[in-house]
Amino acid sequence: MSDTTQTPPVHPAWLPDAAFAPLGSRRVLVVTGPDAGPVGATVVDEVRRAVTTHGGTLTVADLASADDHDLVLRVAPDGPDTGFTRLRTGGVTVVVAGDATGLLHGLHDVVRAGEAAFGADHPPVVSRPLAPVRMLDHWDNIDVHPVMGQVERGYAGGSIFYADGRVREDLSRVAAYARMLGSVGINAVAINNVNVHATEARLLTDGLADVARVADVFRPHGVRTYLSVSFGSPMRLGGLATNDPLDPDVQAWWAATADRVWATIPDFGGFVVKADSEGQPGPFAYGRDHADGANLLARAVAPHGGTVFWRAFVYNHEQDWRDRRTDRARAAYDHFAPLDGRFDDNVVLQVKYGPLDFQVREPVSPVIAAVPRTRVAVELQVTQEYTGHQKHVCYLGPLWSDVLGFPLAENATRTVASIASGAPGPGTPEDADLRAGGITAVSNVGDDEFWTGHPLAQANLYAYGRLAWDPAADPVALLDEWIGLTFPGADPRVRETLHGLMDRSWLTYEAYTAPLGVCFMVDPLRGHYGPNVDGYEYSKWGTYHFADRDGIGVDRTVATGTGYTGQYPAPWRDVYEDLATCPDELLLFFHHVPYGHVLHSGTTVIQHVYDTRADAVELVESWVPRWEALRGLVDDRLHARVAERLTEQVRSATEWRDQVRTYFFRKSGVPDASGRPIY
Amino acid sequence: MSDTTQTPPVHPAWLPDAAFAPLGSRRVLVVTGPDAGPVGATVVDEVRRAVTTHGGTLTVADLASADDHDLVLRVAPDGPDTGFTRLRTGGVTVVVAGDATGLLHGLHDVVRAGEAAFGADHPPVVSRPLAPVRMLDHWDNIDVHPVMGQVERGYAGGSIFYADGRVREDLSRVAAYARMLGSVGINAVAINNVNVHATEARLLTDGLADVARVADVFRPHGVRTYLSVSFGSPMRLGGLATNDPLDPDVQAWWAATADRVWATIPDFGGFVVKADSEGQPGPFAYGRDHADGANLLARAVAPHGGTVFWRAFVYNHEQDWRDRRTDRARAAYDHFAPLDGRFDDNVVLQVKYGPLDFQVREPVSPVIAAVPRTRVAVELQVTQEYTGHQKHVCYLGPLWSDVLGFPLAENATRTVASIASGAPGPGTPEDADLRAGGITAVSNVGDDEFWTGHPLAQANLYAYGRLAWDPAADPVALLDEWIGLTFPGADPRVRETLHGLMDRSWLTYEAYTAPLGVCFMVDPLRGHYGPNVDGYEYSKWGTYHFADRDGIGVDRTVATGTGYTGQYPAPWRDVYEDLATCPDELLLFFHHVPYGHVLHSGTTVIQHVYDTRADAVELVESWVPRWEALRGLVDDRLHARVAERLTEQVRSATEWRDQVRTYFFRKSGVPDASGRPIY
Repeated sequence: MSDTTQTPPVHPAWLPDAAFAPLGSRRVLVVTGPDAGPVGATVVDEVRRAVTTHGGTLTVADLASADDHDLVLRVAPDGPDTGFTRLRTGGVTVVVAGDATGLLHGLHDVVRAGEAAFGADHPPVVSRPLAPVRMLDHWDNIDVHPVMGQVERGYAGGSIFYADGRVREDLSRVAAYARMLGSVGINAVAINNVNVHATEARLLTDGLADVARVADVFRPHGVRTYLSVSFGSPMRLGGLATNDPLDPDVQAWWAATADRVWATIPDFGGFVVKADSEGQPGPFAYGRDHADGANLLARAVAPHGGTVFWRAFVYNHEQDWRDRRTDRARAAYDHFAPLDGRFDDNVVLQVKYGPLDFQVREPVSPVIAAVPRTRVAVELQVTQEYTGHQKHVCYLGPLWSDVLGFPLAENATRTVASIASGAPGPGTPEDADLRAGGITAVSNVGDDEFWTGHPLAQANLYAYGRLAWDPAADPVALLDEWIGLTFPGADPRVRETLHGLMDRSWLTYEAYTAPLGVCFMVDPLRGHYGPNVDGYEYSKWGTYHFADRDGIGVDRTVATGTGYTGQYPAPWRDVYEDLATCPDELLLFFHHVPYGHVLHSGTTVIQHVYDTRADAVELVESWVPRWEALRGLVDDRLHARVAERLTEQVRSATEWRDQVRTYFFRKSGVPDASGRPIY
Repeated sequence: MSDTTQTPPVHPAWLPDAAFAPLGSRRVLVVTGPDAGPVGATVVDEVRRAVTTHGGTLTVADLASADDHDLVLRVAPDGPDTGFTRLRTGGVTVVVAGDATGLLHGLHDVVRAGEAAFGADHPPVVSRPLAPVRMLDHWDNIDVHPVMGQVERGYAGGSIFYADGRVREDLSRVAAYARMLGSVGINAVAINNVNVHATEARLLTDGLADVARVADVFRPHGVRTYLSVSFGSPMRLGGLATNDPLDPDVQAWWAATADRVWATIPDFGGFVVKADSEGQPGPFAYGRDHADGANLLARAVAPHGGTVFWRAFVYNHEQDWRDRRTDRARAAYDHFAPLDGRFDDNVVLQVKYGPLDFQVREPVSPVIAAVPRTRVAVELQVTQEYTGHQKHVCYLGPLWSDVLGFPLAENATRTVASIASGAPGPGTPEDADLRAGGITAVSNVGDDEFWTGHPLAQANLYAYGRLAWDPAADPVALLDEWIGLTFPGADPRVRETLHGLMDRSWLTYEAYTAPLGVCFMVDPLRGHYGPNVDGYEYSKWGTYHFADRDGIGVDRTVATGTGYTGQYPAPWRDVYEDLATCPDELLLFFHHVPYGHVLHSGTTVIQHVYDTRADAVELVESWVPRWEALRGLVDDRLHARVAERLTEQVRSATEWRDQVRTYFFRKSGVPDASGRPIY
């Protein structure tokens, strides 16, 4: 059978053949050992492809001398248990890994290094991923929603997994995607939407053979497959009378279901669950809590080594806007902090990085530090739901770097990434009971020619993978890496221009959208795209800015507000509580202030609103001729696609600027000191 | 073939058998004459049904003595050419009409009068409809839109005409509807949406046999059938290279198409056209104007006696909110006034009653008085798009009465209804060249059990028909009539309660929604249901309120604003121009004023906003127990449906109150003098 949806031409992303030239022109020895498996075969295939294209040689051997080779890729019992070691000695570059997956990651480390991998001798450098699980979640549906489309919050066409109401016959796009993920060290993927609709629910049962085909495609790249499942499955799929986690029939149903899953896919990863959240079923209906709910599934998958990723995104989505004491930002902490210690060992609590919902600017979620006896995965969003729908250039590496590197733990002793990864910080006792969760994110790819709608959004997928491996990496350096791989051998102006457009594009997007951490102000009609200052102000969603003629912002202090700042460990509870120490960029998240309030930057809130929006649009406008100057220096189709998106970005940013400036002028009555037009 | 959509039980609306008791218990003589046709048969059927139920007698004769009868219904050559005459003489009630259709209308006049029709002798009373065409437009689609549903702006279930992608096999609902329309004198119906989509466009060609079946159902009730057609039909259906109205092939295509229509349905009415409006194709694309466009179709249908209803709802729906000089309210006048005199005699310009779009409160459209050499139909909206989606009690009779009775013509010499009907006013010269258009409206029925979603919204359909016949009728008296027919023999508390809820329900709806004629402030996400004060403020739709911290309203004056007031004849241009004479209820439509501006009522604008919203909600809340007290006194299912809707009305009105009050408090900073809560 063939799919009626034609697979479009596929852009090679950061894996064009030319990026393999330095390695491919060398004499390469691969020693995968006797248990190489499918990942070992991938390493061999990658090297074979490279040397065939670029004139090098490949030797595959179980035992061989490094003599007469420029590069040795070797699995060895003394190699690191995760990751790899790279050294250069006697003019030979050597990568050693404890298993084939580590070797694959080491191979791509050599590809990324390019000619530099074959320079001066250097001692061994160990590269280990901080987080044991580095996951991508797909919000793909099998069916196409009339409004949402097929991929919820997808901005890159249809699903690469599904077409015509079923898993695709032709999984070649998935294979190319798996190769991309493996190359940056992603090792887990959940292949369906956390909002589990009727058709998709059946992947867990009737659709298992198809899921197994997908898992077969990911496996050679060191990626395990997960499913999002509905807490309501026992009733919906099993015909049971209840989903109660304490009901023996429900427990038996989940156990039997898990048995069938692992019988079909022995290295299956586990389940991702969105329960009691935005209408999804959950344990609350039975008077049970989320530990009961998560452990129900955890016990079913434990015999198979499976893991349950249980999302902490639980809040009242039927809030009354009149009620200024209820604060959605508090919800996840209030729900989950009391449950710490009650989750089984194979439960990972999946926590969005901020307390609201993937905003352009939010403080880090205090939940991450509030459940030390629970495994935590921090959840990022690669797909640009609130950051321009992959129509806007918005390189998110710096945002994620800030989040992952934020020293959230008590007295700033451990970063978010450390907590999620189970890694110690300075002063952590050696016998500390550290629990490793992981890092996860919502993917941004679809069956679009360029994978991501906006070709430059490929950099977000790349940077996510690299930061999940090494949260301390410099995001601008990662961008540079991505440019080198994606545009190998390009004119230097390409690199220079891309840095010019992308390095600070997240801050630019922030500068023309909602100011100073106030969040939302997006258009509910257009799926969070474009401005609507009051778009959520009188809604049920719990996301308000409370702007009136005198001021704006949400008082979340302990002293006079919702008390949310009290959920933070020291010193953050005090830093955020006090106007004098609260950072400008989060001011309106934590405080309601008059328009005349003077920021640490020295300007008033209202003038900041006016200036930054106007300045940001001028900057975005300047990108158009800069990009235009690259015509002929990059692929024509890619150039045209980016140019088209930049036109829309200018239009949309202008709309943001004008609506936000006008809205606040009408409310505050304060003229713009710069004299620029307000409507 | 049977439809898969089951026809639900059908409420008899204002035609329950019991309403026919006074007539049905009499001895009735019907004289339809030799050319009675299907409408004559309907008269006979109606009387037979009534006397069979209620014990009277029916004599049908061509010539017979009135002796021994209580009621004589007679077609006579000397009867009025439209309408009928009723008199009572010698204890016999006599209705005389010039044709069977007039007789049908006279029959229902007797039904409405009830026992009063058989009281004291009285001289002949002539009843003629003011407007020659009294139409209902259906915005029904064949296909079901994923967001809009099947009926655009429909709030009463699916279409009564279409199911399963085609015209229904079972047209019994349409027959019952046709009977309702005939009973109140409606004589024209357009059976598909003016936004003509692909499937519906083919009604004009492939679907004609089905349209003929529908026409067969309307015909016995004196109702002619019309179609909405797309100006783009020659290209879309005919495969032509253009829709240019001056192209001979286009003209030939329309002529041939019209020939086929009338060959299939000899008494077909004509076409309704929405061109160059909200994305529909039109003559502008070919550099032609709307006279060219309308006359193209008019000449095709003229040989068959057909009429083209050409909508004047033409405006720029891609407006820039920053542009405060462009005024959507001006658009129809600016487009159509210059074309006066250029439309063929069988073109009727169909003009919405206000310059915007069926708002709760708008001034009357100046276009109606601006095209004296053009036939005009004024368009009302029975379906409650902007008036509560048939979830709110909102009796629109008083609104339409105000509109139809408004003395719009120069020096207030003729009303809107007179202009549309071609009727003279005081001082109109006898030889004046008056052109009759008609009155039309968007229907509010669907395949809902109660026809209209909200059972009390049946009164709107009823009142529309009655006002289209007699625009001078008292809308509260019409409501009383409707109550008597719909709840015959009910406890007096039913009548009293319904008057209490409904008489001023339009003003109540106005009082809790957008204030003082400012329009919109509705939620674009919910199809214009519920509040969203800034919902259209930064949109492309041209409907703004310009509220800032100091004031609100649209300056449409000639002196300082958009000049819209200058489109009105005297005295209205001056009345509206001047703050001192502009009526309170339209103040913000015409003027931008400070919140402290004192109304003619003596209160300030801001306090009016606060007070009226709070008072209106208190009133709506009082309706709940009043309706509850009718339990057992009206049909249980109807009672339950109304009770359910009242609960929603209270919720929604409260939301309106709180959002509007809070919005304006946050903007103005003026406290509510009454001290009632603001959030």
